[in-house]
Amino acid sequence: MILGRCLGSVARTLMCSILSWCVTAHSGAATAASISPDSEACIECHVTVTPGVVADWEKSRHARVSPQEAFQKPTLELRVSAEQVPERLAKTTVGCAECHTLDSEKHADHFEHQGYTIHLIVTPRDCSTCHPAEADQYSNNLMSHGYVNLVNNPLFQDLMESINGGRHFEEGRLTSSPSDALTQADSCLFCHGTRVEVKGKVMRETDMGPMEFPDLSGWPNQGVGRINPDGSQASCTSCHTRHQFAIEMARKPATCSECHKGPDVPASKVFEVSKHGNLYESMGGAWNFTTVPWTVGKDITGPTCATCHVSLLVNSEGTIIAPRTHQMNDRLPWRLFGLPYAHAHPKSPDTTVIKSASSLPLPTDLDGTPSSSFLIDAEEQSVRQRTLQGVCASCHATGWIQGHWDRFLHTIQTTNEMTLTTTRILFTAWDKGLARGPAQKESPFDESIEKKWVEQWLFYANSVRFSSAMCGADYGVFENGRWNLSKNTREMADWLEARMAREEKDKSTGKDKPPGKGKR
Amino acid sequence: MILGRCLGSVARTLMCSILSWCVTAHSGAATAASISPDSEACIECHVTVTPGVVADWEKSRHARVSPQEAFQKPTLELRVSAEQVPERLAKTTVGCAECHTLDSEKHADHFEHQGYTIHLIVTPRDCSTCHPAEADQYSNNLMSHGYVNLVNNPLFQDLMESINGGRHFEEGRLTSSPSDALTQADSCLFCHGTRVEVKGKVMRETDMGPMEFPDLSGWPNQGVGRINPDGSQASCTSCHTRHQFAIEMARKPATCSECHKGPDVPASKVFEVSKHGNLYESMGGAWNFTTVPWTVGKDITGPTCATCHVSLLVNSEGTIIAPRTHQMNDRLPWRLFGLPYAHAHPKSPDTTVIKSASSLPLPTDLDGTPSSSFLIDAEEQSVRQRTLQGVCASCHATGWIQGHWDRFLHTIQTTNEMTLTTTRILFTAWDKGLARGPAQKESPFDESIEKKWVEQWLFYANSVRFSSAMCGADYGVFENGRWNLSKNTREMADWLEARMAREEKDKSTGKDKPPGKGKR
Amino acid sequence: MILGRCLGSVARTLMCSILSWCVTAHSGAATAASISPDSEACIECHVTVTPGVVADWEKSRHARVSPQEAFQKPTLELRVSAEQVPERLAKTTVGCAECHTLDSEKHADHFEHQGYTIHLIVTPRDCSTCHPAEADQYSNNLMSHGYVNLVNNPLFQDLMESINGGRHFEEGRLTSSPSDALTQADSCLFCHGTRVEVKGKVMRETDMGPMEFPDLSGWPNQGVGRINPDGSQASCTSCHTRHQFAIEMARKPATCSECHKGPDVPASKVFEVSKHGNLYESMGGAWNFTTVPWTVGKDITGPTCATCHVSLLVNSEGTIIAPRTHQMNDRLPWRLFGLPYAHAHPKSPDTTVIKSASSLPLPTDLDGTPSSSFLIDAEEQSVRQRTLQGVCASCHATGWIQGHWDRFLHTIQTTNEMTLTTTRILFTAWDKGLARGPAQKESPFDESIEKKWVEQWLFYANSVRFSSAMCGADYGVFENGRWNLSKNTREMADWLEARMAREEKDKSTGKDKPPGKGKR
Repeated sequence: MILGRCLGSVARTLMCSILSWCVTAHSGAATAASISPDSEACIECHVTVTPGVVADWEKSRHARVSPQEAFQKPTLELRVSAEQVPERLAKTTVGCAECHTLDSEKHADHFEHQGYTIHLIVTPRDCSTCHPAEADQYSNNLMSHGYVNLVNNPLFQDLMESINGGRHFEEGRLTSSPSDALTQADSCLFCHGTRVEVKGKVMRETDMGPMEFPDLSGWPNQGVGRINPDGSQASCTSCHTRHQFAIEMARKPATCSECHKGPDVPASKVFEVSKHGNLYESMGGAWNFTTVPWTVGKDITGPTCATCHVSLLVNSEGTIIAPRTHQMNDRLPWRLFGLPYAHAHPKSPDTTVIKSASSLPLPTDLDGTPSSSFLIDAEEQSVRQRTLQGVCASCHATGWIQGHWDRFLHTIQTTNEMTLTTTRILFTAWDKGLARGPAQKESPFDESIEKKWVEQWLFYANSVRFSSAMCGADYGVFENGRWNLSKNTREMADWLEARMAREEKDKSTGKDKPPGKGKR
Repeated sequence: MILGRCLGSVARTLMCSILSWCVTAHSGAATAASISPDSEACIECHVTVTPGVVADWEKSRHARVSPQEAFQKPTLELRVSAEQVPERLAKTTVGCAECHTLDSEKHADHFEHQGYTIHLIVTPRDCSTCHPAEADQYSNNLMSHGYVNLVNNPLFQDLMESINGGRHFEEGRLTSSPSDALTQADSCLFCHGTRVEVKGKVMRETDMGPMEFPDLSGWPNQGVGRINPDGSQASCTSCHTRHQFAIEMARKPATCSECHKGPDVPASKVFEVSKHGNLYESMGGAWNFTTVPWTVGKDITGPTCATCHVSLLVNSEGTIIAPRTHQMNDRLPWRLFGLPYAHAHPKSPDTTVIKSASSLPLPTDLDGTPSSSFLIDAEEQSVRQRTLQGVCASCHATGWIQGHWDRFLHTIQTTNEMTLTTTRILFTAWDKGLARGPAQKESPFDESIEKKWVEQWLFYANSVRFSSAMCGADYGVFENGRWNLSKNTREMADWLEARMAREEKDKSTGKDKPPGKGKR
Repeated sequence: MILGRCLGSVARTLMCSILSWCVTAHSGAATAASISPDSEACIECHVTVTPGVVADWEKSRHARVSPQEAFQKPTLELRVSAEQVPERLAKTTVGCAECHTLDSEKHADHFEHQGYTIHLIVTPRDCSTCHPAEADQYSNNLMSHGYVNLVNNPLFQDLMESINGGRHFEEGRLTSSPSDALTQADSCLFCHGTRVEVKGKVMRETDMGPMEFPDLSGWPNQGVGRINPDGSQASCTSCHTRHQFAIEMARKPATCSECHKGPDVPASKVFEVSKHGNLYESMGGAWNFTTVPWTVGKDITGPTCATCHVSLLVNSEGTIIAPRTHQMNDRLPWRLFGLPYAHAHPKSPDTTVIKSASSLPLPTDLDGTPSSSFLIDAEEQSVRQRTLQGVCASCHATGWIQGHWDRFLHTIQTTNEMTLTTTRILFTAWDKGLARGPAQKESPFDESIEKKWVEQWLFYANSVRFSSAMCGADYGVFENGRWNLSKNTREMADWLEARMAREEKDKSTGKDKPPGKGKR
């Protein structure tokens, strides 16, 4: 009997140990931090009203760890950059109330809700309570200025109009009408960010009966440069998806590809056909996307977007390979996205300040001249190049890196030349009155030949450069690249030649020129 | 000794428990149901002849559970909708013989095979033995009419011909020849479904020696609206892939993307760049795709196609968020796929009955007028909208949903307008004899300018609408969307202007018009 | 006490067994083989210098198994094809030194490095020490001749120039300049392979201070037909990615898609929308990609690229379904990639020997006539067809396979016809002097109309054929297929008609022809 009990006890103990090990391995470490009473009150209803939100949050780190606990991690393991937070926030987990009632009175979208003053849109200013370094770095990132840089640049506005404006065919003529806020929010501003404003209050039917909410314009939106009702700029949830805010998600390429897959910035498509993308796709299932810091070789055996551009990387001895940055261009000497030519990165994230030699709001003039005083200099480029190549060096020898870089710089040069060739064709068309551009006080983006020119730099030259930079050549030849660059150039030249020949003939036969455009 | 034996026993017991736990965890619950002798006879040969089929089936739920067991599940967990099946089918697993010998004599493709009368193609009528509600719902789904709606509509037939017909260049002229059954089956009908018919019998060499089989035309095919040799319509295996018929597969987006990735219905590409697609891609590895019902938040923290359009969803308390439906448009107020304009969903899944105002077999007339008497009314749209938005509400607040919906409805309107603009251009061309359309008793799809018009609605307007509906803006701007809508409109207007100018000049110089087309 | 100790011992033993089982399950079988002292010396520094490389290798099979152990596997499980290796290589794992110091003096890129003579680029000749059959088979694969077949074929060189050459617009004329080595390496040769040559020596800064390395041109590159500094041809690492060389990676489709995703060879995109691709995407997470041999049904329930084209496959009884081959066309009767028409596979992997009826270096003449004496005959096609269909038969009945094959052969024929139609249009243009081709000693690839012709066969006809072969119809209709074939044909015919009409008119009014081209 005694022996039996004893044996039973051994068995139970063992089984408990095993089960406990299994459970721990599955669910992550336990935590002592508890949810705040305010957040508990939120969840009481919202577990039924928006069950997906609550369940998602419950899987988050925010639901398990208090700021105080987060601060106590060894330096390299820190996921927070603040050193302390207000006492009332320190000891509970980071729940609904902690974020949605934080300084709500400073948010124009605040309202009374079941006895609480809350605001709808949690902003980078809110997040910076615990993550100030990240919010600050990101504010120096071009992306955080995605809205203002687009909307406050008259040339980009004109391009937007040429895409989003209405087109009508009436009495044999094509006419255009201005685009509207809903279309813009559904198009360019979906990724760039909208301006979210409070239009007033509105009553809405809910599962709990009618309730009053702020009525927002420009909402929903989670674009990178969103203007928020608290006056702040940018949206952390573009990449750190609500409400799990999982670091593994931000580190996976599908996050970046939400906005970087189209032919203008085809980073995702290039990654897919690169060796790096293949490693991720084929082997990434066994990688560890949650550890901080991220140990090259141990956690991952190939890079994702975040590896090269954002994350804190260390080697197996804990030596830092690259510090974390949310100003992605810290590691980028060149801006491949040509406007219209690839160029050294702008100094300021606010690119509306830039003026080219001919006073256009562009980082490079139409003839390719860089707007140098607004761009980082060669020395700064060199610093950023070294930082980026430090990541490459985790897995590549110096000769490999040098060979790759030489090829890449050469491609920047040759694709810029291919853009210049078509710009010269367009200049000739403008000069000869075969198309009407800025000199005629008209849009450089609305005529067919102008649209072909836009595709030359915005789609084809960009695509070739991304393919080169990220070693995904399959994309940059026939899919959307050198084949197209060359074909498009020839077609533009053919068009010019045919039009000039026609003009010549019309002149010799006394015909008038065809009517100008005055339309889109 | 005794102690030793005893201890050994404890150890063995423990190890067995652990192993058993591991095995169970790996392979799913054990079952008492056994395979029928008939199915065993099939497998005896086929484990060698088609090992992949047998092994795949062995991993299926069909191989583990008998109908009788399946019927005993609690209502919400039911995967069958019948209440009983014929006695002889009730107690064994659902094996080869259970489906392939079911009422075989009613299938024109039945034949004698190793002592059994079997039929090759298992049809929705067979599946409805256990799954009648699903078969019935699906018969009200447009997809189940994919073959008849395409093939019995003269206008769509004409479009098919313009794509699949042969083109020849002889004596300086482009001529066309009709498409053939093999080409159609390899093209449109691959997804829409073929008509599978028994041409006769044929002897074939097999591993078991020569055997006689039915000789089928239109085979192989697993298109959604396939006409089967038993006279039934549709194919369950389009989505429920043989022979594992795994619910996780039907719930994953790769299933839908087999037919919904091209530019005409780019749902898959839009999903890929949406936040939802990112959640699936980045976090879906940890989701549970096998549970019935599907618990939002617990099983999944983001939706797939099936979540929004098909599956039975509950919240963590077991309350139904949306009932299962295989008539997908139960949750769809609008048909985004414009023919040629987006419109309220057709009332009947048989769209060949529809006549537009000008008697075309189209849900919207060429000028955009909806063929309203054949389409659901605003009230029914409202019902379906509420059902769909109920799914959204699992994770989104009412303001978010309202804002999204306003934007989406606006995009339906503006893209329809962009289609109308190009239709007017084409009308003018037809009117002036610069192209030849229905009024001249010719195809509206075969000339270059007409093909540009088709791309306007079939590719670009559709793409923008799917991008809007599913929040994947990156696809709907530059990849295949507003940029193209606007560019294509301008190019069509330019073409018209140039042709009219040429006509004008030819007239003034006494030239004849160029010859009409009479060709593809 | 004794009992307690005894029980404790049982518990410890049990726990050890369990933990050991867990560890083994996680990390693969233990091995007795140890790393060589030379490789240890490499790692001593490189664990810091290139930590990713070392960590990746440590996860490899090469790091766990010695050649001697590898040779002892049962025949079907062998991953090596040599029967023995030099004694000094037999008993240690396959580490840095084993490959990078193997016959280094025969590699032009050898150099002195920390007391060792090593070479940078490990080549198929090195790999053939253990894998001679694979290296030999691959040398008979077209891919291994990717560089020479492209660069030594004057017609393909001309096509490359039309893509990669510079274009300039000066004094109103479009001119061209030759492409350069860096551009070619960044474009076509990225996948096809470069010629890697030693230019000299170079000093580079390293973490260990300045060091001398070979200075290579054409580097980095891992193209399939790379010319290596030891005179060998091809690169195993194109598919067997360094330094883990994981068989699961080579077996996954992302590996092939590095070079087979673009519109010229869109196998990856077709696979994505095929049932097979869906199976992989939806269910592949549970498949076993590491076992040798690969058991159909047990390890995988659907095929990847490697399944059909490369891998050793067995059924559950261990019977061989298909032997392993690295000469992929062993299972390919047809070459779908038309040059410019689909054709029976070339006999020799060196296609530079081929001459067409009109003496062009093409497997089919411009009028479609196959260069038959250089292509495999019908009997050999039949052998290869049976091998491939043997794989199909794992999961498909004979009637299915026959129906599929009939459809596929028909599509080869009809797409070849659609190519011929446009070739005839181009011939007419050349004949009438509306474009200038080979007869005028000019490129057939540089004019706009010629580029449309190239797209007809290189993009559209190829795409339709791949879609047919791999059952991914969604890709081959609207995405890049029959729609485009038909539209492009019509546009080419329209162009010809318009140009001829203009010529006719110019003639009648005494105008000269427009100037010839003499430009790209």
